[in-house]
Amino acid sequence: MGAALLSDFATEIVVPVCAVIGIVFSLVQWVLVSRVKLTPERHASGSNKNGYGDSLIEEEEGLNDHNVVTKCAEIQTAISEGATSFLFTEYQYVGIFMIAFAILIFLFLGSVEGFSSKSQPCTYDKEKTCKPALATALFSTISFLLGAITSVLSGFLGMKIATYANARTTLEARKGVGKAFIVAFRSGAVMGFLLAANGLLVLYIAINLFKLYYGDDWEGLFEAITGYGLGGSSMALFGRVGGGIYTKAADVGADLVGKVERNIPEDDPRNPAVIADNVGDNVGDIAGMGSDLFGSYAESSCAALVVASISSFGVNHDFTAMLYPLLISSVGILVCLITTLFATDFFEIKGVNEIEPALKKQLIISTVIMTVGIAVVTWIGVPSSFTIYNFGDQKVVKNWQLFLCVSVGLWAGLIIGFVTEYYTSNAYSPVQDVADSCRTGAATNVIFGLALGYKSVIIPIFAIAISIFVSFSFAAMYGIAVAALGMLSTIATGLAIDAYGPISDNAGGIAEMAGMSHRIRERTDALDAAGNTTAAIGKGFAIGSAALVSLALFGAFVSRAAISTVDVLTPKVFIGLIVGAMLPYWFSAMTMKSVGSAALKMVEEVRRQFNTIPGLMEGHAKPDYATCVKISTDASIKEMIPPGALVMLTPLIVGTFFGVETLAGVLAGALVSGVQIAISASNTGGAWDNAKKYIEAGASEHARTLGPKGSDPHKAAVIGDTVGDPLKDTSGPSLNILIKLMAVESLVFAPFFATHGGLLFKIF
Amino acid sequence: MGAALLSDFATEIVVPVCAVIGIVFSLVQWVLVSRVKLTPERHASGSNKNGYGDSLIEEEEGLNDHNVVTKCAEIQTAISEGATSFLFTEYQYVGIFMIAFAILIFLFLGSVEGFSSKSQPCTYDKEKTCKPALATALFSTISFLLGAITSVLSGFLGMKIATYANARTTLEARKGVGKAFIVAFRSGAVMGFLLAANGLLVLYIAINLFKLYYGDDWEGLFEAITGYGLGGSSMALFGRVGGGIYTKAADVGADLVGKVERNIPEDDPRNPAVIADNVGDNVGDIAGMGSDLFGSYAESSCAALVVASISSFGVNHDFTAMLYPLLISSVGILVCLITTLFATDFFEIKGVNEIEPALKKQLIISTVIMTVGIAVVTWIGVPSSFTIYNFGDQKVVKNWQLFLCVSVGLWAGLIIGFVTEYYTSNAYSPVQDVADSCRTGAATNVIFGLALGYKSVIIPIFAIAISIFVSFSFAAMYGIAVAALGMLSTIATGLAIDAYGPISDNAGGIAEMAGMSHRIRERTDALDAAGNTTAAIGKGFAIGSAALVSLALFGAFVSRAAISTVDVLTPKVFIGLIVGAMLPYWFSAMTMKSVGSAALKMVEEVRRQFNTIPGLMEGHAKPDYATCVKISTDASIKEMIPPGALVMLTPLIVGTFFGVETLAGVLAGALVSGVQIAISASNTGGAWDNAKKYIEAGASEHARTLGPKGSDPHKAAVIGDTVGDPLKDTSGPSLNILIKLMAVESLVFAPFFATHGGLLFKIF
Repeated sequence: MGAALLSDFATEIVVPVCAVIGIVFSLVQWVLVSRVKLTPERHASGSNKNGYGDSLIEEEEGLNDHNVVTKCAEIQTAISEGATSFLFTEYQYVGIFMIAFAILIFLFLGSVEGFSSKSQPCTYDKEKTCKPALATALFSTISFLLGAITSVLSGFLGMKIATYANARTTLEARKGVGKAFIVAFRSGAVMGFLLAANGLLVLYIAINLFKLYYGDDWEGLFEAITGYGLGGSSMALFGRVGGGIYTKAADVGADLVGKVERNIPEDDPRNPAVIADNVGDNVGDIAGMGSDLFGSYAESSCAALVVASISSFGVNHDFTAMLYPLLISSVGILVCLITTLFATDFFEIKGVNEIEPALKKQLIISTVIMTVGIAVVTWIGVPSSFTIYNFGDQKVVKNWQLFLCVSVGLWAGLIIGFVTEYYTSNAYSPVQDVADSCRTGAATNVIFGLALGYKSVIIPIFAIAISIFVSFSFAAMYGIAVAALGMLSTIATGLAIDAYGPISDNAGGIAEMAGMSHRIRERTDALDAAGNTTAAIGKGFAIGSAALVSLALFGAFVSRAAISTVDVLTPKVFIGLIVGAMLPYWFSAMTMKSVGSAALKMVEEVRRQFNTIPGLMEGHAKPDYATCVKISTDASIKEMIPPGALVMLTPLIVGTFFGVETLAGVLAGALVSGVQIAISASNTGGAWDNAKKYIEAGASEHARTLGPKGSDPHKAAVIGDTVGDPLKDTSGPSLNILIKLMAVESLVFAPFFATHGGLLFKIF
Repeated sequence: MGAALLSDFATEIVVPVCAVIGIVFSLVQWVLVSRVKLTPERHASGSNKNGYGDSLIEEEEGLNDHNVVTKCAEIQTAISEGATSFLFTEYQYVGIFMIAFAILIFLFLGSVEGFSSKSQPCTYDKEKTCKPALATALFSTISFLLGAITSVLSGFLGMKIATYANARTTLEARKGVGKAFIVAFRSGAVMGFLLAANGLLVLYIAINLFKLYYGDDWEGLFEAITGYGLGGSSMALFGRVGGGIYTKAADVGADLVGKVERNIPEDDPRNPAVIADNVGDNVGDIAGMGSDLFGSYAESSCAALVVASISSFGVNHDFTAMLYPLLISSVGILVCLITTLFATDFFEIKGVNEIEPALKKQLIISTVIMTVGIAVVTWIGVPSSFTIYNFGDQKVVKNWQLFLCVSVGLWAGLIIGFVTEYYTSNAYSPVQDVADSCRTGAATNVIFGLALGYKSVIIPIFAIAISIFVSFSFAAMYGIAVAALGMLSTIATGLAIDAYGPISDNAGGIAEMAGMSHRIRERTDALDAAGNTTAAIGKGFAIGSAALVSLALFGAFVSRAAISTVDVLTPKVFIGLIVGAMLPYWFSAMTMKSVGSAALKMVEEVRRQFNTIPGLMEGHAKPDYATCVKISTDASIKEMIPPGALVMLTPLIVGTFFGVETLAGVLAGALVSGVQIAISASNTGGAWDNAKKYIEAGASEHARTLGPKGSDPHKAAVIGDTVGDPLKDTSGPSLNILIKLMAVESLVFAPFFATHGGLLFKIF
């Protein structure tokens, strides 16, 4: 079997160093962004020409117009304050939940051995002695809190950076689309690297600190560490659902009155819901997405670690091989760093049509370099041959097989990304067909859009299935977990691309609200259109990785719960399977209805303001933005509780009353059904959005026959876009979290369910 | 163990007698319907006052207006000819498929033992000798053809009866809503009883004829009989998909131009697509539904029989107990007969508000009486204790447990029916909320409608899960199969209620086209609105029973393929599961896109006619109905092939190349995912339809604030209704067949897959 080439000491150095490099790189990007000044005074002094020494293009656009800059700064402040205030309100509620749930974890896990503080035989190797269940309860609780706090921090910092960058992107757009792109992309990179490095560092420190107590009891150590994944994911749930409802209530509400009834453009400052709409982009797409991907990252690491701890790595105390998942992430940070330079330094964007290819190149470059990175890490980080725990047996794995497991995940992610692009970008026929169907009205648009979404699941599911088959066959559940890690190894680049979208969207909004030239808006629109596609790609990644992560967690849960088979042909499992497959529908019903109801409230308020504030429509009076912000905030806080409760309580109720077999069925059912709805919902929404943009932009002969803005086909397209909003930004992406969270929660509570679960069947 | 109380001889008598009673009853109903005359001459003679001796109400409506009656007869002929011509075209294509597939069955199954005609050891009991595989191949092929022909016949006769009854319902509506109701309901009953009795009789005769060859080899006999289910279901697939595309292409096309662009009412004779639309109701909702439910009935019988043949019933050659599934269906016919009398003879409908309760009462009455019937059959038809094959073991079952299995299916059907009614009838808040959301436009209507559909799956899934758990726990796969039979035991009543809907719909269309009084139209509209809800209930039944049937077939397949567990934790099964869960999406994408494309073609043709035929809009010129009929026919024939191929080829490809484990995963995945989409699609569509009708009818204060016809909320509601059309009448109901058909096909081909399957894994 042998040991890894990399010494344990070197591993202890490499991981934190890479994390620190990521953080430093992120700060450097931030400094570069901050050189775009939002205070007009500096420009007036002419000392440093808005932070750049190079010549300014298009001075004629009124670059040094004090009013515009001041106005941008004002709007930015309003958005930033709205977002901060919402997140603080959300975190208050979430904080209460976090504490309550932490207590629950402690009580449930502590009760496994009756709160005894005596050491006990290990679960997998009865001859050894492990730390008491009470210690695992305590450390699980601590790691849950750590994960939760890191997740909250990731979302919050992302939001702060995005609201810092949006107005700066607007101002840079005056100089050219390339400059604006760089600001938006750098800001995305700040978030991406901070999040990836932070997640890695906290996990690394936690493992090392826990090790001080656990010593050689790695089984207990990594069982406790799984709380980190649960913490990350449960915060992500509230972030995604709450943020998702917030952003879409505002967006749908603003559009329904503004665009449809009053016929004023998007982001028009006269629309009372416009600030809430822009705040929403930051709390939903940025903070929510950040927490979500952090959750995936934390969970796939935890799943890999917990399986490794009962494999030869853990049994032989091979620390380097044990930390293989963290080594992969470490190399990922370096790879993404190089990749980012391709976008910001090695090449320059000169025209609007270069934006989307530049972003796509990021994905390809990072995947190619990362493949080499994985090969290196696998070569030096794991022995050439080792064994992996496989539901009771130990399975022999070669290091090249492990390399294939990670790589297949990485490349499946790329394929999913490109398929998503094909189905949601208006450069290809699927979206153009949807746009074309608007000729016969909104109904055919909706029918074609739904059909497109359904169709778009085919290839991603095959990609996921092949990854699962390859990694499962080679290295059982460990293979699945590292495949998920492979898909997430370029998370810093993925997040940078993702965050870039809402920043550009906001930048456009600010340009419109600040009354800047139409040319600026055209540029930010071009940035935004590319951002729509990359957002869909990002969601594709998030869903694909969620599927793999959930399966890995599911496997770890089954191992921990000591079930040897999950046989569909037993009534307990089958009813779990069919009810589990229903849960995503139940969850989607809740979130979609929430968006609908909240949007109706918003519509009423916006209508009220237009009807009662004299001079609002003419632009003489200012709308009451704050009330709209409050409506979105209140609605999302109130409405995120029932879906949150559904997800958090289902594993607890099923596990406690029906036992681990039924719970295993529920997890498998929710996974295979949820992943389909998530992909189709997010692609349908993306396609409708871009079909509308296709008609609006009128860039081709065909598109012009459908337009212009305000034509009947365009109106039909707007209806499709509005229907797609909650699908693509609320219910769809939240489903990732549903499937991951239920799996990780089951894993954390597995010791309890295995001991005390299945009450109902015990009674009857 | 003992034997059943009922002697084998008595069983041989009871089953065909009940079937014949059903056929006779059906003919009596037909004679009663036929007494409404469509030839005006008879009325003029005044000899029998339109077939009824009782006094005619409302002579003032112009009862004896020759022109109206002649026109009704003309329109009826046009509809009937269109439907007949479509079905003949469809059957030509389907006939070719049928022959090709029959050859395939023979070749695949014959090759199991290399076409050897020597007797061989039995599959389950190696010590006994069974008939050669070649015989099973031959008899499977024969029973496949029998099932296919019976299915085609069921659909065709249903259509003939419906097109015979539609104009008669219109004419009776002149006398009062009660009279019209009775004609429509009796006609539905003709179809219901004919189909149930016919299906039973053919199966009974086939078993007895096959027995002449098979003798005591019941294992082979009932294995061959499963072809009957496959034949029934594969015809149902083409019927549902082809008919579904036909009807919705015409409906959507007619509505998009007629209602939305030209602002003319539904079924206006000036609309060129109006005949195609009315033909569609008959080929889609009647012929398609008939074939579908016949398929479910045939499959659940076959699943129960094949499991019973390897249980103590089969091993001990207990013929009465063996035919228990047929006894249940026999009693079901008698129960439905009594139930029908409650609607047609014991009570009379006096007002429009009594229609829906009368139909609901049918469901309750039949369920209550049937429960007694099941108790009796179970008491006399099976021994007090027996054993059932359970994946390798024999499980002891008491007769009262079997009674519970059948009853739980029956009552679950009722619950599903009532939940469906709650979510799709405009008497309750869910549909009213959807109607209310039309205030803010089509987008919120679509969002609320989708959310309603998602939510409506919760209780049905729990009902199905509980049935599965109870019946699975008591009597393994046999329990599931008889639970499905329980749900389908009142099929005659269910079909009568189902068929009643499209007949009323057609009757309304004929009244409109014949230019009859507005009062007539109001009555047929009331009949139709109740029919919409019952159609949704019928679809609920179809889906619920499909879920149970598929599971039973799945179990039988697994037994036959000699797999002892279907473990989700093996890569082969898991990839099957996730790909299987994707198939309903793929299938829905195809069918929805087909409807969309066909509707676009229809729209172009209807527009062309309005633009080029002078005087059409003014009513001076006649539109060219035939071209629209041809467009629907051609589109549906062409478009039904790809989804049909997907369903028929998937089990063959997966089984042959990936083997039985992966195929088992695919079946389970398709089942748990498909049932959710099917329920949500059909309820969403039903809710949108009735939300529109709610606004149009304006029966409450709330409804009137949304209307009248042509208001903005009403326009939004029409868009929702149009989107819902393909969901509720094409893709949704076809999914039942997808899950059933893949399961029964796998079962029939199981001997081949078990011997030669899994090529890909054998090679690598």
